Parts: sequence; structure tokens; C-alpha cells
Amino acid sequence: VYRVETETDVSDMARGAVFLGGGGGGDPRIGALVVVGQLRRGKHPLVISAEELNDDALVLPIAGVGAPTVIQEYLVSERTLRRLLAECKKFYGRPIDAVMSAEIGGFNSIMPLAAGMAADLPVVDGDGCGRAVPHIEMTAFSIYGCRATPSVVTDDAGNVAHIFTVNDRTAEDIIRATCVGMGSRLVGAFYPMTGKQVKETAVLGSLRQTLEIGRRIRAARERQVDPIADLLAFLDVPSAQRFARRLFAGRIVDVRRETRDGWHWAQVLLSGAAAGEPEFSLEIQNEILLARRHGRIVATVPDIITVVDSESAEPLAAERLTYGQRVHVIGYSADPKLRRPEAVAVMGPRAFGFDFDFVPVEEVNSI
Amino acid sequence: VYRVETETDVSDMARGAVFLGGGGGGDPRIGALVVVGQLRRGKHPLVISAEELNDDALVLPIAGVGAPTVIQEYLVSERTLRRLLAECKKFYGRPIDAVMSAEIGGFNSIMPLAAGMAADLPVVDGDGCGRAVPHIEMTAFSIYGCRATPSVVTDDAGNVAHIFTVNDRTAEDIIRATCVGMGSRLVGAFYPMTGKQVKETAVLGSLRQTLEIGRRIRAARERQVDPIADLLAFLDVPSAQRFARRLFAGRIVDVRRETRDGWHWAQVLLSGAAAGEPEFSLEIQNEILLARRHGRIVATVPDIITVVDSESAEPLAAERLTYGQRVHVIGYSADPKLRRPEAVAVMGPRAFGFDFDFVPVEEVNSI
Repeated sequence: VYRVETETDVSDMARGAVFLGGGGGGDPRIGALVVVGQLRRGKHPLVISAEELNDDALVLPIAGVGAPTVIQEYLVSERTLRRLLAECKKFYGRPIDAVMSAEIGGFNSIMPLAAGMAADLPVVDGDGCGRAVPHIEMTAFSIYGCRATPSVVTDDAGNVAHIFTVNDRTAEDIIRATCVGMGSRLVGAFYPMTGKQVKETAVLGSLRQTLEIGRRIRAARERQVDPIADLLAFLDVPSAQRFARRLFAGRIVDVRRETRDGWHWAQVLLSGAAAGEPEFSLEIQNEILLARRHGRIVATVPDIITVVDSESAEPLAAERLTYGQRVHVIGYSADPKLRRPEAVAVMGPRAFGFDFDFVPVEEVNSI
Repeated sequence: VYRVETETDVSDMARGAVFLGGGGGGDPRIGALVVVGQLRRGKHPLVISAEELNDDALVLPIAGVGAPTVIQEYLVSERTLRRLLAECKKFYGRPIDAVMSAEIGGFNSIMPLAAGMAADLPVVDGDGCGRAVPHIEMTAFSIYGCRATPSVVTDDAGNVAHIFTVNDRTAEDIIRATCVGMGSRLVGAFYPMTGKQVKETAVLGSLRQTLEIGRRIRAARERQVDPIADLLAFLDVPSAQRFARRLFAGRIVDVRRETRDGWHWAQVLLSGAAAGEPEFSLEIQNEILLARRHGRIVATVPDIITVVDSESAEPLAAERLTYGQRVHVIGYSADPKLRRPEAVAVMGPRAFGFDFDFVPVEEVNSI
């Protein structure tokens, strides 16, 4: 159990969340603004570990769904978060015991802290992916046996839907469509689960990891050591099956983006040299899905690919990548739960329609 | 009270429904197939008039939502209709007293007969429009004070959603989007209302009118009189503020159509002469929205515009209009409830983005 005490904690968690989110999961400033407002009123999010849950507790993973390009233009209000949890309580006909992040990402792992405080509920330290993902069915929850629906969703205007689907892939289709109908953004409670299911299916400890990553980057800056090299050393723990690699260093020379079907799609080209053809590229569907060097795949989902500022190591949200930025691209292996064959089948490159297999980030030569 | 007794009754109702539906409301053969199957098993739809309802009865208008071009490729199953009403009963926590058509149209006024039989419920003789409309909020129900949600919707796969919206225009957006997520077709219960609200807001007697129109056309053919002239004489009752006009006679020379955003959109060009420029055109969004002669508006929503075969007077569903058909175009004034200014504001040409006013069909010279 710990409480998020300071505004620095919140900004550290937001920074770490953008890193683990692979650039996706929404704008961290929006969730952070709400949490900071609550801290200033003397409220402090309570984060609990999964072991503290009773096996029959009702835990609701919550998330914003939509295109980050749209979400960044709207503030989600405490009123909307309170309404979401009040609607859930009414729907389930019993009190909610805790909320949890459905995914780690700029907005989506900070927002549950705000929702927990708005509804006086603890937040479980864990999530469904240990990263952000563009599809609702791409979670360890789903892969290891929880169902995405019934889902309760709402928007800032006050529209509400209860959604029941025959499988999690269909949940993605119907919730994404509902999201478009609600103006390409909604917040919802997905994968309602028991405490026992949290312990069995969630990626645990991921919320604390956002705090640790964010702190580490800040501390390196303050100590005036190279924050990127320091972060790589911190993350690369082969004994825990976690690997971190610097994939590229250079400059963004082109960004093509569009907001379509409720997602943010983009292709980003990078160049290491002052002139000549760009040699590195990123494919984005809300999150960075894959990285290529000279056309050859060097990292893919479910591993995490994140762009950081070359000086400050600040992780950059995918929708904020722009021409001229000097950046490094970091590859970080996904949680081991997401690299098993049954998980790669749901979250690997083929699940996004690409005709090649998952390439573990540690198998590629670092630069 | 009457029972739909024979297969001829069903096909007459389907024929009349395509006529009143302005070519929209889906393919009548799909609903009719289910009803005929039930008749053959000895079941007969029970149609009751609104006066027979208790004021506190729970009545659910039901409809299919989607693009008729998609709906015509799928049979809606009795199982789906039974599931819809079982989900409604669970949702409302009380028995349903009757169903009703949300709109009159090829599929949408026959399907409630099938649903009523599947769930052993009577069908109220009335609907929300006395015609078919492409938007959920375009009903006398909405204009005179009922709300479209809570709505319960389902699809053939077994997905279900409960939808609650802040207004009926938003209900249209969210339900249409959900429909796209469900593969551009769903069936749902909209505008849940009391018996008292049925009496106050519905267009009454419209289901019987489908039977009368269908019978009239069939009888004229059997008596070998001109079925179109006979139908116009039957429908044109100035004392009841109902007017019918023949707007055009000719041949379809071009049809441009697409299925987009969950609707069927089309433009149909007609020509009366053997050669030369087409002089008559129809704009379609599921239903026929307006008719122009030499570019000049001759009829618009909310009045009913229907294309019938020039020989048999068979009304033609908009999605089945094709090059070369010899047809007459009939204009029939909408129910007086839909021609009041507050209704024209919601269902007239400006509500569809056209920059001109409603033109009552009786103000145009007939041909």
C-alpha cells in the first residue's frame, strides 16, 4: 500500500507511463491535472497491491477509449469519472472494491488514480498489459481468461451504454464504434473481475514501475548523468527477462498522420545524418507498433517502442511527435506474460495485419 | 383487435408498408418470411388498437436499424427477436405489455408482428412516423415528448447494448455508430413508453393502413382496373388532410448508390422521353427524401415519395431501384401530425442539410 503524496510523484508517474505506453494511452497532462487538483484539496490516491484484495472483491479496470489526437483536446472531468463509477455500482448492484488501469499509458494509468479518488476507491497496482495497446481485446486479462464485457461506458455529455458481447474481439468493434458515436472519446469500465482474477491475469506492479521510471529519469537529469544511458541500465535486467535497447538516435524528418475510425494513425520517418534518405521509421496506431531500420524490422509489438527526447530523455506521446525533434528510440521488452505464444498471437504484428513474426528486442543489435 | 390471418394478409401488409415507407424501412420479404413461417405453425399476430392499452402499460416500439442494402442480405431470426424481448424484460424488470412499430416500412412494420408472436405479445396498431425515416430522432414520439432511450439493442450474433443518451439526436449518433460496430444492422427497442404516451404521441392506425393499401393494389389488379389511378383515388382524401399525387411517369435511366456510415445513399435519375436529358430525380438516404423535376423541388420529406411499377403499381424498395425499370413516382402527404411546424423542423428538408423549405405535395401540379 502506498499513497501518491506529491505533485512530483504524479508527474513522475505520468512520465513513466508515457514511456511504458509506447507513446500511446493518451496525453498524461490531462489525467495529471485532475489528480494534482485533488492533491491540492488534500486527497491522495491509495495504491494497493493485488495481494491485498479479497478473492471475491469486485475490481473494475477503467480506461479512456479513443484517438489520443481527440482526447488531448478535452479534459475528462471528475464529474464524468464519478458518474462512471456510480453507473457501475448501479449496474452491478453492489459496491465496487477497487479500480485498476486497463493499460499503462499517459492518460490511462493516471486517470484511474483520479477516478479512485473521485469515488473513494483504492487503485490496484497493475494493469492488463504493462503497456498501452490500441485494441480492447489485447490484454493479458483476455488472453488468460477474463472477458471484456459487460462494459459500462460514458462520455462527458452524460451518455451511457452497457455493452455485452459474444467475444472480446467483437467488444473492440462495438466499443470502438460506440466511441466514434460519442465523438471519438469515452471512459469505461472493462473486464470486470474478481480479486482472484486480478492475481491470476493482470500484469502486476506496473503502476509502481511508472513511478520508478519517471523518478529515475528525473534523478539522472538532476545528477547530470546521461538520462538515457542511465534508464537503459535500469531497465535492462536479463535475470528478470526484461531487456532494453537503444534502437536509434537522430532527428524526425517526416510525420504523416490521420485520425480515422477512432484511432490516431501515423508514420514517422527519422534520419541520423544531416542529409540523405531517412533510414529509420515507426508505424503508429495510437501506440508505436513497429520500428524499421533500412526497411528491416528491428522491434515490434508486444515489445514497447518509445521515442524520448535526446537530451532530457522525456518520453514523447506519439501524437506529439513533430518534424525536427532530436530523439532516441528505445526498445523495451514487454512483460514476460505478453511474450508467450498465446499472447503474441493476439498482440503481435500478425494481429495488426503485418505479414511477419514478432522480433524480440534483445535479438536485435543495439546501436 | 384483429388477427393477421392469412399469408395474403402478410403480403398485402408488406406491399402497403413499402409504399408508406417511401421505399425505405428495409426489405419486406425478410420480415414476411418469418411471419409466414409462424402462420404456417398456427400462430397469428394479434393487432390491438391504442385505446385497448392501459395507461400504465409498458409498450416497446421496435425496429431494425441499418442500411437496407446490408439488411437485405441477412435474415433476422426469431431467436434474435425473442432475445431482444427477453433482454428488455430483464432490463425493465417487468413484463412487456405490447410491442409496436417504430416506423412503417418494408421490414420495420412487419418485423414487430414476428417479434410479437415470438414473445406472445400483441402489436399496437400505430407507429412513430406513419412512414419510414432514416434517423432515430425523426418520430412523432420524439416531437411530442417521448425519449428514444433507454434503448436495448442486439444483433444476430448475440451482442447486446443498453444505451442511455442525453437527447434523441445523440441517440441517433450513438445507436447508428453501435449499428456500424455490429456490422451495419441491429434490432432494438426504442422509445419505451406507457399506454398513455402511445395514445398521445403515436401515429395511430398506420399498421391497418398498410393492409388496406396492399389489399387495394392487389384488388385493382384482380379487377383489371388501373391500379395506380385507383390507389391515388383511394389515398387522396382532402377532408382527412391526406393528399396523393402522381409526380412522374417514366423510366429509370441512372442509379448511383453507396452504403456509408450505416445508411444506403442513392441518387436516381428518370426520363419520360425515349432520348434526351433525364428530367426527374430522386435523392435517397434509406428513404426517398425529395423529388425534383427539371431541378425544381416537387416533393420533400416529411411527405412520402414512393416509386411504383408502372404496370402493377407494386411499390419498389429504394435499394432495389435499377436501370431500365418503368415506374411512376407517387407523392403522398405525411400524417398531419408530421406536417406541423415543430415536426417539419425535425423531419423536413432542412433537417437533412438541404437549403430549402418543405413543399407540401398538394401544392405541386400533378401530372
